[in-house]
Amino acid sequence: MTPEDAGCQALMMSRLEALGFTFEIFDANGVSNFWATRGDQGPTLAFAGHTDVVPVGQLDNWHTPPFAPTEIDGELFGRGAADMKASLAAMVVAGEAFIAEHPEHRGRLAFLITSDEEGPATDGTVRVVEALQARNETIDWCIVGEPSSSERLGDTIKNGRRGSLGAVVTVHGIQGHIAYPHLADNPMHAAFAAFDALTKEHWDDGNEFFMPTSLQFSNLQSGTGATNVIPGDLTAQFNIRFSTEVTDIYLRHRCEEILGRHNLKFDIEWTLSGQPFLTEPGVLVDATSASVAEITGETPTLSTSGGTSDGRFIAALGTQIVELGPVNRSIHQVNEHVNVADIARLTKIYHGIMVRLLAA
Amino acid sequence: MTPEDAGCQALMMSRLEALGFTFEIFDANGVSNFWATRGDQGPTLAFAGHTDVVPVGQLDNWHTPPFAPTEIDGELFGRGAADMKASLAAMVVAGEAFIAEHPEHRGRLAFLITSDEEGPATDGTVRVVEALQARNETIDWCIVGEPSSSERLGDTIKNGRRGSLGAVVTVHGIQGHIAYPHLADNPMHAAFAAFDALTKEHWDDGNEFFMPTSLQFSNLQSGTGATNVIPGDLTAQFNIRFSTEVTDIYLRHRCEEILGRHNLKFDIEWTLSGQPFLTEPGVLVDATSASVAEITGETPTLSTSGGTSDGRFIAALGTQIVELGPVNRSIHQVNEHVNVADIARLTKIYHGIMVRLLAA
Repeated sequence: MTPEDAGCQALMMSRLEALGFTFEIFDANGVSNFWATRGDQGPTLAFAGHTDVVPVGQLDNWHTPPFAPTEIDGELFGRGAADMKASLAAMVVAGEAFIAEHPEHRGRLAFLITSDEEGPATDGTVRVVEALQARNETIDWCIVGEPSSSERLGDTIKNGRRGSLGAVVTVHGIQGHIAYPHLADNPMHAAFAAFDALTKEHWDDGNEFFMPTSLQFSNLQSGTGATNVIPGDLTAQFNIRFSTEVTDIYLRHRCEEILGRHNLKFDIEWTLSGQPFLTEPGVLVDATSASVAEITGETPTLSTSGGTSDGRFIAALGTQIVELGPVNRSIHQVNEHVNVADIARLTKIYHGIMVRLLAA
Repeated sequence: MTPEDAGCQALMMSRLEALGFTFEIFDANGVSNFWATRGDQGPTLAFAGHTDVVPVGQLDNWHTPPFAPTEIDGELFGRGAADMKASLAAMVVAGEAFIAEHPEHRGRLAFLITSDEEGPATDGTVRVVEALQARNETIDWCIVGEPSSSERLGDTIKNGRRGSLGAVVTVHGIQGHIAYPHLADNPMHAAFAAFDALTKEHWDDGNEFFMPTSLQFSNLQSGTGATNVIPGDLTAQFNIRFSTEVTDIYLRHRCEEILGRHNLKFDIEWTLSGQPFLTEPGVLVDATSASVAEITGETPTLSTSGGTSDGRFIAALGTQIVELGPVNRSIHQVNEHVNVADIARLTKIYHGIMVRLLAA
């Protein structure tokens, strides 16, 4: 469970070491990270992923022990089965097959593995990326093994992600007795119209790759608990998932303008969790789509929907990034599972990408 | 501290017993109540009040021990000094003087005393009123000793109170991930415009005796605490202080209509804390105003502002009710106090009302 690696990375490294990979370890604050490379010149193709998993949830609702992988009717059950242990296994096994066939491959094959993707993500991928940046090292192409598939393996690959901008707003009023409202200033009454305007704002229309920017409130609290007191303040949190049509700077200014226009007395704290990133169709998307089509017979849909991923950190290197992994229907839920046959097919897809990009 | 009487009522009763009062005790659930009368026919003038007090608050901020009455520069400090121990003392001493002068007074002089005014008010005055109603007994005139004065003793008397109607609204949405808002239904987004409309609704203009009806939100909560989750519901509380120009039935219907018009999926629970009541100028108001003017040289202003009082329960008997007591500036605060000279003047005012209404 995040940020514990529990021996997964040692297992991966022992397999990769046998293939001639060299390693750098970036452990920090209980988070395990490694960067493994094979080859020393030419373009770098990296496979990225995480060994940590989310909590089990309601244990009683699991049909199998969540930390003992159990196969039932061709499905492998266990926490992390789909998000994303199957992808990690597929990457390593694909690497073994590729290197056996192409021991003198061109460029560099690399692995960037963390145990802090499901947690705060402050001591994981970002640490490795910083080290690479510090020595002007880059990644040309990156496959993130996140479970991108919707209904069938490979039906969807993510060629970007929306940005994520969070806000904590505190609205200031004046506390008072509810029977004397003229002596108080109710922060809720001031906020309703302003917040309504935020929810109704049209930010953009999205574009070919991104759905329109969306603002959602997540938390709201005001009141002393007493029913005869007008409270002195209100706190709200909202989050904006944004496309490449707007910038976080624009969004901040526009939100503050809307709140100010409604004469709110407010403070606002912003947290930029990730800039949007996009890999337009090109070398990496083409190789990935072709490999998927070869194995599944289906050309994947490009998508930038969904939550954030560690791709946002790797994007800072100017890397082309695609996310491709198993069907995500059961992730973060009880009875998480992955189709066993899909693991072998995913291995072949990853292998096909390696061949297309790094075969000598 | 509410609902404890701590011996106050026994002290009052011992003084009243010496004057020939007879008593009925209505103690219930830790609340002490008594109803004392002297005389058995003709109109009833009752003095009503409470022996309980609100909590001390920040003890460190008191300059004197809150439960040891302390006189400093002509002000008597202590919890309950103004709300409303001074009034209780003044009522009893005024009664002693009046009965000494008018042992054969007309009508009935009565006292209705509770220790549950500052608490839930469910086992106090309402119990005595129910007993009187059950035997078709009424009170013609009632002086409630609540601290009605604003700046100077007697500058304001309350000849009514607004009604108080409370609501708990639960807005139902659909919980979901903040990155997939189309799969969720954010109850906050639905509520903002509807709640804004409630705060902007014009209910009435008030009238000669009442300020306009006012709605205020007191509490609002939504959210799971997580910043990436759209919550499934929202809970809000609001309170309406209303004039005699509207009814609680109208207000309920109108609120539900406004919420419904905004397509909210909601439940609402209503609590009617009190109907508005009004004593129009007449025998009681005239006697009270004249007595105040005689002692203070100032004709009091009639007001129906402020919170609720036990007058709302007594009003059910069809009683003319006036609230008259000391300056309320320090009530419910630390260092509550009353001007010592005002206690003697208040005694004379109460005495003057007894004389005007019950002198033989």
